Amino acid sequence: MRSIVSFYFCYLLCLCLGIACVVFVSIWNSHWRGGFAWDGSALQFNWHPVLMVTGLVVLYGNGAVLYRIPLTWGQNKLPWKLLHAGVMLLALLCSILGLCAVFDFHHTNSTPNLYSLHSWIGICTTALFTTQWVMGLVGFLLPCSPMSFRKLLKPAHVWMGGCILILSIVSCISGINEKLFFALKGTTNGTMPYGNLPPEALVANSLGVLIVAFGLVVLKILSNQKWQRPEPRSEDMGYSPLLQDDS
Amino acid sequence: MRSIVSFYFCYLLCLCLGIACVVFVSIWNSHWRGGFAWDGSALQFNWHPVLMVTGLVVLYGNGAVLYRIPLTWGQNKLPWKLLHAGVMLLALLCSILGLCAVFDFHHTNSTPNLYSLHSWIGICTTALFTTQWVMGLVGFLLPCSPMSFRKLLKPAHVWMGGCILILSIVSCISGINEKLFFALKGTTNGTMPYGNLPPEALVANSLGVLIVAFGLVVLKILSNQKWQRPEPRSEDMGYSPLLQDDS
Repeated sequence: MRSIVSFYFCYLLCLCLGIACVVFVSIWNSHWRGGFAWDGSALQFNWHPVLMVTGLVVLYGNGAVLYRIPLTWGQNKLPWKLLHAGVMLLALLCSILGLCAVFDFHHTNSTPNLYSLHSWIGICTTALFTTQWVMGLVGFLLPCSPMSFRKLLKPAHVWMGGCILILSIVSCISGINEKLFFALKGTTNGTMPYGNLPPEALVANSLGVLIVAFGLVVLKILSNQKWQRPEPRSEDMGYSPLLQDDS
Repeated sequence: MRSIVSFYFCYLLCLCLGIACVVFVSIWNSHWRGGFAWDGSALQFNWHPVLMVTGLVVLYGNGAVLYRIPLTWGQNKLPWKLLHAGVMLLALLCSILGLCAVFDFHHTNSTPNLYSLHSWIGICTTALFTTQWVMGLVGFLLPCSPMSFRKLLKPAHVWMGGCILILSIVSCISGINEKLFFALKGTTNGTMPYGNLPPEALVANSLGVLIVAFGLVVLKILSNQKWQRPEPRSEDMGYSPLLQDDS
């Protein structure tokens, strides 16, 4: 009972921090960075942080902890499996759209792509996430996937899931830090320099802290053995993919 | 047996990646950033990345996995506990010296401190690490520490240990990214801009990738239940701090 109360406390924290991340990144880019457009201007770039934080961090983290909700344990796993895949697909689409925003902005402004450490880590994260999603679909949702493959894949899927979240956090923090140094030079556009900690810097730095806190709460939920969905023994069950409760 | 072979493969990888991180950060700062001094110049700043990567990532990571080495499991835990505390103290001293290097550099050059997101995450990491080390000393090494406190502290100590490593990686990647944008502007000092990916950028970006890989291998070792040191049941043992084998 105490364990379940602790879970829901962490889960509530995860939801609140996730909402706060989306609110902070949206306010930062709409209020201080001028809003959004899809015309190759700096306003197009503003979609990049919003979509990456929303997709690669918030939706991803919420999708990852779905199976841990005790309320779902007594129910058939399939709807939750489909919801997990659906939320992750939405997260992936947001991330890909977020990448398109920045690639297109760079292309319009003749800026090179994929040179910074932030971009190296970011592109690896999205590539790993895409691979993870495809492997998850093939391994856990396609009826032709054999049980032996599922058993082999599951620990790797869980482990890689945590790694991708860590990489997402690293990408977001390095990206926010980079953007603030670019945006708050304090010389050309009348903004206060980053070093004076103007309100924009406080909001964006706080967004970084919220992302880290969100990521650590999600990793806490994922790592707690007591909060794992109890699985039936697979050797007692006939093979019935898409209906069975394990993997 | 297979589990032990896998462990030593991961441990070897961890050692090699750790050495590679120290080599890359040293070469970057000695060859491309002009070397080291303690005179308030940019050469003093160069100690910052070297000491933070060496202390907060490499020594810290190696100190964290010490208990997981199966070779040590049959032996008294106390020498390994002292070695764990000693390596962590060395890591902490490197980190504090690394912070002194940058604070003193900023002071000499009238640059504000602790304004960037990198610095916010970095200072929180070092503060948490200091708290963790002091709590570890009080909880696990002082003879007056009661068993009930040790039992309460241990899971929090293990969990916080992983969190600090993740924060260290986030701090290092955002810091390397920031430094490269400062150093490779390609306008004033005849360097090629970062966007052209000159050799320095390739080396420093690769350092970032090595740090992430090192961190993930350490977290993999820490999270594998099979690689945890088997602990005797504490309820079967008399209370004999500093000699006992558990906690």
